[in-house]
Amino acid sequence: MSWIETSYMARKGVARGAETGRRHLSEADQGDYHYVYGPFVEPVMRLAPGEVVSVETLDAFGGAVKTEADLPSQVVNFPFVNPQNGPFAIEGAKVGDTLAVRIVDVEPRGPQPAGTSALIPEFGGLVATPQTAMLNKPIPEKVKKMEVTRDGVKFSDRITLPFEPFIGTLGVSPFMEAVSSLQPDYWGGNMDLPDVAPGAIIYFPVLHDDALMYVGDCHGRQGDGELCGVAVEIPAVATLHVDLLKGWPIQGVRLETEDMIMSIGSARPMEDAARMAYRDLIRWMVDDYGFDEAEAYFLCTQAGKVRVGNMVDPKYSLGASMKKSYLKG
Amino acid sequence: MSWIETSYMARKGVARGAETGRRHLSEADQGDYHYVYGPFVEPVMRLAPGEVVSVETLDAFGGAVKTEADLPSQVVNFPFVNPQNGPFAIEGAKVGDTLAVRIVDVEPRGPQPAGTSALIPEFGGLVATPQTAMLNKPIPEKVKKMEVTRDGVKFSDRITLPFEPFIGTLGVSPFMEAVSSLQPDYWGGNMDLPDVAPGAIIYFPVLHDDALMYVGDCHGRQGDGELCGVAVEIPAVATLHVDLLKGWPIQGVRLETEDMIMSIGSARPMEDAARMAYRDLIRWMVDDYGFDEAEAYFLCTQAGKVRVGNMVDPKYSLGASMKKSYLKG
Amino acid sequence: MSWIETSYMARKGVARGAETGRRHLSEADQGDYHYVYGPFVEPVMRLAPGEVVSVETLDAFGGAVKTEADLPSQVVNFPFVNPQNGPFAIEGAKVGDTLAVRIVDVEPRGPQPAGTSALIPEFGGLVATPQTAMLNKPIPEKVKKMEVTRDGVKFSDRITLPFEPFIGTLGVSPFMEAVSSLQPDYWGGNMDLPDVAPGAIIYFPVLHDDALMYVGDCHGRQGDGELCGVAVEIPAVATLHVDLLKGWPIQGVRLETEDMIMSIGSARPMEDAARMAYRDLIRWMVDDYGFDEAEAYFLCTQAGKVRVGNMVDPKYSLGASMKKSYLKG
Amino acid sequence: MSWIETSYMARKGVARGAETGRRHLSEADQGDYHYVYGPFVEPVMRLAPGEVVSVETLDAFGGAVKTEADLPSQVVNFPFVNPQNGPFAIEGAKVGDTLAVRIVDVEPRGPQPAGTSALIPEFGGLVATPQTAMLNKPIPEKVKKMEVTRDGVKFSDRITLPFEPFIGTLGVSPFMEAVSSLQPDYWGGNMDLPDVAPGAIIYFPVLHDDALMYVGDCHGRQGDGELCGVAVEIPAVATLHVDLLKGWPIQGVRLETEDMIMSIGSARPMEDAARMAYRDLIRWMVDDYGFDEAEAYFLCTQAGKVRVGNMVDPKYSLGASMKKSYLKG
Repeated sequence: MSWIETSYMARKGVARGAETGRRHLSEADQGDYHYVYGPFVEPVMRLAPGEVVSVETLDAFGGAVKTEADLPSQVVNFPFVNPQNGPFAIEGAKVGDTLAVRIVDVEPRGPQPAGTSALIPEFGGLVATPQTAMLNKPIPEKVKKMEVTRDGVKFSDRITLPFEPFIGTLGVSPFMEAVSSLQPDYWGGNMDLPDVAPGAIIYFPVLHDDALMYVGDCHGRQGDGELCGVAVEIPAVATLHVDLLKGWPIQGVRLETEDMIMSIGSARPMEDAARMAYRDLIRWMVDDYGFDEAEAYFLCTQAGKVRVGNMVDPKYSLGASMKKSYLKG
Repeated sequence: MSWIETSYMARKGVARGAETGRRHLSEADQGDYHYVYGPFVEPVMRLAPGEVVSVETLDAFGGAVKTEADLPSQVVNFPFVNPQNGPFAIEGAKVGDTLAVRIVDVEPRGPQPAGTSALIPEFGGLVATPQTAMLNKPIPEKVKKMEVTRDGVKFSDRITLPFEPFIGTLGVSPFMEAVSSLQPDYWGGNMDLPDVAPGAIIYFPVLHDDALMYVGDCHGRQGDGELCGVAVEIPAVATLHVDLLKGWPIQGVRLETEDMIMSIGSARPMEDAARMAYRDLIRWMVDDYGFDEAEAYFLCTQAGKVRVGNMVDPKYSLGASMKKSYLKG
Repeated sequence: MSWIETSYMARKGVARGAETGRRHLSEADQGDYHYVYGPFVEPVMRLAPGEVVSVETLDAFGGAVKTEADLPSQVVNFPFVNPQNGPFAIEGAKVGDTLAVRIVDVEPRGPQPAGTSALIPEFGGLVATPQTAMLNKPIPEKVKKMEVTRDGVKFSDRITLPFEPFIGTLGVSPFMEAVSSLQPDYWGGNMDLPDVAPGAIIYFPVLHDDALMYVGDCHGRQGDGELCGVAVEIPAVATLHVDLLKGWPIQGVRLETEDMIMSIGSARPMEDAARMAYRDLIRWMVDDYGFDEAEAYFLCTQAGKVRVGNMVDPKYSLGASMKKSYLKG
Repeated sequence: MSWIETSYMARKGVARGAETGRRHLSEADQGDYHYVYGPFVEPVMRLAPGEVVSVETLDAFGGAVKTEADLPSQVVNFPFVNPQNGPFAIEGAKVGDTLAVRIVDVEPRGPQPAGTSALIPEFGGLVATPQTAMLNKPIPEKVKKMEVTRDGVKFSDRITLPFEPFIGTLGVSPFMEAVSSLQPDYWGGNMDLPDVAPGAIIYFPVLHDDALMYVGDCHGRQGDGELCGVAVEIPAVATLHVDLLKGWPIQGVRLETEDMIMSIGSARPMEDAARMAYRDLIRWMVDDYGFDEAEAYFLCTQAGKVRVGNMVDPKYSLGASMKKSYLKG
């Protein structure tokens, strides 16, 4: 028996976590990609709970950075970055429900070198930005292209990094806002958190009827914090299995793997993202696992884990997690 | 001669800062108020550069808090707070232009006590919030109603505060986003900065054709930081004089009075808002007043002023200003 | 009658705010200046409550920057910056008491140009620093010398700024620590807050027997935030009138002028400094002026003022203040 | 051959990483424990490079919390918390050298339950504190005692956590300051970082002649962030192997294990700690491993790891690390 059968998705989902059909969304099907998460466009596809959809995503630059000579400041038409597929209407989704998305696979596609990273002026975790505004001159713009296959990410002649793909940007529409796909928030979006990877199920609060799921911005891999702001960006086929949970409302993004549960916070300064994540994790332990609040606080102190997703986006994203083995009754 | 004639509005505006007409927008004219700043609704009125419009604004609670027994958590339908008039299309406004808005007047209206403040659970500068998430229990919810006239704000039997009205929320539509009217950003919005007051001209970058100006959330007065998150909220008639500037592009919000120029930054943590504001002020001094960067940096160090607008909204807003008397050639 | 007679210093001080004697501490008397606030050195002078002492302070560079050709990185022997006079033992001061220091005068001294500012690599509010660490290259180092007299600060040929002197660094020894004179904290230190000026009385918690007061780092003037990190640094004669308050214990630094009371917070990020300052102000209003906490919170929201002292030191310092006219019974 | 032989300690140490002797420091030998890191006390022992010393440390409460009825606010004499052994003078250490400390072992000692955690009013990562000052009431004080042996930490009847001991507070004296042992900084101190564990070598800049090493505050284990502020505090025998490195000066704390190198940053807000850590890691990769800066920045982006040590101390501590396998020539 797979752990999936014991997941929230299987226990509480309308489709009980079963796969009820397979769908595909090609680039041509998508047509126009989107640059905001919001409710002001028509769904590109309707999915029933239980359906699996494979989606042809673009990389964060929309494919415009083909060689190391293609500087983003020249070839990218800002703010049209981080193009998103969708929105996908989830049949029956109502405000207050929870959307479950199991990450089935992230497959690189497109011509090699498929992976792109870049140092972009006034963007990144170790440079002055429009927010952390300074008088220092920007560092030189630079592009790095990398071959990316299931066998690895060829960082350089001597360094091949493991292929550990995940989805950088995934979530649902806000209730009444339409927010840049560069921003992460309690509806998901550009969290750039490596745990949003094959093997994980991620949960979003449904904030608008039909949920209106968006997805894009796959990464071949990434270090903690996505330091320069640009991971191993790849075009990909992202395969997602959706289900709809009634009666398990959540306030922010949660995630589950075979071994752990995780709450995700997105905020600035970074400690606020950590506080959000840990407080939600404690509330989760109290609500679902029988801890009293002080005991959950103690256990997070002694055994909680923190993953820094990004320290570069409009809000920073962190995940706080607890091993399932410590949660058993 | 009024200082207005030497303002950017008069020197660079299409209407040269002249008043070319008077308009009025009543509550009935407005019909539905708005809760996001964005381009996805039709303009409620078109204004030519030079026109003056008086607008019947609602208070931040949409008038729902009529007595001190009306607790916001019970009478306000979140997230429908901070209702906005508009959007106003500005004739001829193109992306890259600058919108000038002279604050002519803010007149309280409606039955007394017209002013409302409140302690709202998990909101405010000195309490745990969903972002600065903590395990402490919320402090008690509480409403304070105050009579507000041009003669003063009756805070209590023994304290009457000066009536120093301003506009809490004013700005233009983002380019492709639609963002909550609770948030301030480089397009204006909920800056809650007391300098946005009669006597000032405020400048916004035009990010969408027609500019799409919104306005609401007038305050009878406010302390620095808007500490509990709710100023002296009043329904009002806000009178605005608009003009359109070609050839003076700006990256964020700027403001001008008879005596000073100010750049406004909105960000978290608060030092980033200060950095944004001061860097823009320095660039302004370099571009328009002949300073070299180091000299402008020195002058801001010795003579710059900082006003903390809010320390409670999704981003904190600060203004950094320089006296005009130090800028003369 | 001077307002001084109604001050905390006069009402609660051992000497009732009276001047009981005059003392002087010359450079020669001082001998070795100090670079930490701490209890591990002998007092240079003992003062009785009520005594007034005039102190020959050095500028923050110890006088090493004599011309604009004297770059701090070459002529200053780091970390020997911000030299302090003292410590002054205050007769009878016990842990838990409060030290009152009335700023009587700050007189510039030394050869002209007496004022020094500088852009120092990796230091300042608008550049990358060792803490806000970035990969951007530092901006050029630069020194600015200015004539400073009681008539003004000659910033440039065309700009003369008002002489508004204050004390950048003033405070008492921590209980068991010895902390760099560059740092502000709840014992005072390098707050760089322009309100610490002639006309004000500042209060410090006594953390070590004898209080052990230090003083230095006078400024001819400064803008809010001390943006580049170096104000108009001057050697000066600082004249201080001390008194000792029993039975009015405080947790951090407070200040009083004829018109207002102020609490000062020093922390990072900046919002924490603002929270500290405002919370202490509210507690003060509750303890001494009969407000209940909610009412004080409301009044700070509507009428509180925030002064940004520095946004450059190891902790940022802000003052939150309330007009005395709103505090009267 | 052990990896130790290829470590910086072995390659650059005066003793070449060899063990040249064994020493012991009992509680009685220590006599008075210390509460500040500084140069104002006599060394308790002199160690030659190469010597191994086993030290009887107290827990962070000095052993005062013996049962769950012993509330810290009642039994601990603040600020006398986090008692430290030392200082140890390292023979031949000069300012500019680097001290290597290999963590050989951390052995719990004392009566069971040896482990203590606690919820202390106004202290911790998810509550209002004197810095993140709020009006919310504190949560209830509470003590949790746990049996701690090499077999595990008995968190509750149903949860036993792995024994993964480390040293919470370890470092050297600042140059001229004496700073609370509760604070982490570039000299080490209260970093509360679980990587400071048996199997690791940690490096400190020598800031004062003789280095003056302090150690204390051992933990039976800890989650990321030390959320409530109190880990599994234990009295222990900490066994440390010291060596002295000439010609490898460092600016902050570094660490090495068999598999990775790590730079540690301590600052607020948390993103500044991350920036410090990552920038130092990049500089290390450039100086010692032949990367150019951009390439190191890219590699950290794709393969860097971040460990959140504490989010509760006066500064937050984070480690940024890179696998040694990616650094090989």
